Amino acid sequence: MRRVDVTAGGRTYGVVIGSGALGCDEFPPLSARADGTGFIVSRRVMELQGIRIAGLVERSVSPHIFPMDDGEDQKSYHHAEEYFNLLLKSGFSRKSLLVGVGGGVVGDFTGYCAAGYMRGIGLVHIPTTLLAMVDSSIGGKTAVNIEAGKNIVGAFHQPALVIADVDFLRTLPWEEMKNGMAETVKHAFIGEGRLLDLLRSHDPTTVRGADVMEELIYLSAGFKASVVGKDERESGLRAILNFGHTVGHAIESFLNFRGISHGEAVARGMKAELEISRRLGLIKGDEAALCREIVSRYGLAEEEMRLDVEGVLEHMKFDKKNYGGSLRFALLRGIGDPVFDQEVKPGLLREVLQIL
Amino acid sequence: MRRVDVTAGGRTYGVVIGSGALGCDEFPPLSARADGTGFIVSRRVMELQGIRIAGLVERSVSPHIFPMDDGEDQKSYHHAEEYFNLLLKSGFSRKSLLVGVGGGVVGDFTGYCAAGYMRGIGLVHIPTTLLAMVDSSIGGKTAVNIEAGKNIVGAFHQPALVIADVDFLRTLPWEEMKNGMAETVKHAFIGEGRLLDLLRSHDPTTVRGADVMEELIYLSAGFKASVVGKDERESGLRAILNFGHTVGHAIESFLNFRGISHGEAVARGMKAELEISRRLGLIKGDEAALCREIVSRYGLAEEEMRLDVEGVLEHMKFDKKNYGGSLRFALLRGIGDPVFDQEVKPGLLREVLQIL
Repeated sequence: MRRVDVTAGGRTYGVVIGSGALGCDEFPPLSARADGTGFIVSRRVMELQGIRIAGLVERSVSPHIFPMDDGEDQKSYHHAEEYFNLLLKSGFSRKSLLVGVGGGVVGDFTGYCAAGYMRGIGLVHIPTTLLAMVDSSIGGKTAVNIEAGKNIVGAFHQPALVIADVDFLRTLPWEEMKNGMAETVKHAFIGEGRLLDLLRSHDPTTVRGADVMEELIYLSAGFKASVVGKDERESGLRAILNFGHTVGHAIESFLNFRGISHGEAVARGMKAELEISRRLGLIKGDEAALCREIVSRYGLAEEEMRLDVEGVLEHMKFDKKNYGGSLRFALLRGIGDPVFDQEVKPGLLREVLQIL
Repeated sequence: MRRVDVTAGGRTYGVVIGSGALGCDEFPPLSARADGTGFIVSRRVMELQGIRIAGLVERSVSPHIFPMDDGEDQKSYHHAEEYFNLLLKSGFSRKSLLVGVGGGVVGDFTGYCAAGYMRGIGLVHIPTTLLAMVDSSIGGKTAVNIEAGKNIVGAFHQPALVIADVDFLRTLPWEEMKNGMAETVKHAFIGEGRLLDLLRSHDPTTVRGADVMEELIYLSAGFKASVVGKDERESGLRAILNFGHTVGHAIESFLNFRGISHGEAVARGMKAELEISRRLGLIKGDEAALCREIVSRYGLAEEEMRLDVEGVLEHMKFDKKNYGGSLRFALLRGIGDPVFDQEVKPGLLREVLQIL
């Protein structure tokens, strides 16, 4: 087992990574100190991994289980009110603990509930997808969707512990793994050289080995932790983590989150933003080509996609990084050398978005 | 004009107090630096003080006005979603500023919106009631109500500036002033000796003079700021500010917030919690009597009130200070000598709640 420390919000917490991490010693004392432990658990994980979840619940004090359906539409502002009412009616206090067990949706939602309930209660993340392990469970961003936009309402709320047990990944289809691979690839591009080496020396088959996965999660989560540790609130540096996401989010949003996975959207976003970086004279052609090769190697953004450019641009206007009416991007000056808060003019964007 | 500094959340911000404070120099630069300034303004204040609000808007950059009805029912989780949608559709970014102009309801609601929108944007409080000036605008507590309970969902979100212009109080009826007087009386009891002297040397007529009001707000806001500065998140000391509120909130909640003002409920709560303190051998009888005299002097909790004791107790169970199934109170060992996290047994509570 490996451990990454995240320092943010004036505290340091651990991310325990590896096979069997679910049984780590750090969890039971957190539950024992809490005034009740509420598990918000993905129904799908409950079905596939019920015994392991039961084992976890057994090692906690005064547990309550609140099942949750998966799917982005569940992560709504409106839906959270049901859980707030449930928590209060179940006797949860400001000294209680919430544990989110599931992928990014369950993690974001549980984090949001823990951040807002009685102005903030304790939180543990137990990510069960690669995406949640390498990215969304690290760094304290929580949010829900409102009618007008995704992730618009939320808070920074750091967990007390993250448990990334790679055994959960055994039942995860490759199509879902790819969502996590896209963020891992991003971390390799924007600064984690060891991760770039790992990705270059593996392929979609070999990367799934338990030891390789542990190393990949350790490097990816560790890189994110180092960025968050320098800039929790995204006042500056943390914005580099948005590489690929400005275009990626706009595509998802334009398609109404249907017919495209987050990983595919981010991969296409990275390709677009690599091309923007190249045309602006930032990254060199050969480095951009290497990046594209790695994206393709892991089965991401393989086929060309034609989109309504104006439609995608329209959705980009609501990106949280924007201000003063201009579009702001994280771009690459080279592999491992990101820059943030870069204005990109609509003209250049229109050209690049023609073919994704 | 006077100024109180509040240090919380790693920053220090000012509370500007006095006649004409609305024209203070601190506000225009905050608005100028922001990517749009949104004013959430009480409709009633707009009607009564439209010209003054217009003057404020005039001194801001890219203003938007979002009127809001007064009343506790407006301060709901559900209602906030409308404002989040409005903010996004109006082009508000994470660098925008929200300004709440009104009483406690508008302040809590605006603070909640600023805390959650894009995980937190800038906030200015312009309290227009005595309650908001001496209490709710200070210290960063924001919250909204859900079906199962009041102020259950929220965040700690400190403003960048608070402007307490006593000129707003000229049109405030005494019945509304009393809500602020109850909190002021509380601050006098739990630690601000100068405020106790002021309250003892005045009465409901003389206290309304502009100079006396300025002094009263300065002392009351300053006392709250000093407590919040030591314990922003209510890990301990800040709980003393709940004196009178454990019983007070339960009464309000039991009565469904109808037919009793917040000040009246808190005043009755203080009387009950003084009596609990006395019966537990904490405060001496003569000090408790002096406290009761001051409460009465300002027209608070004058007539006896008979309530359904079991009903009120039932509502006390949902108090945010409770944990482990026991009821927790802030009590007085003497005037200016509060203690918090005190368990009170239901038996004693039942006796004291017979007559409020």
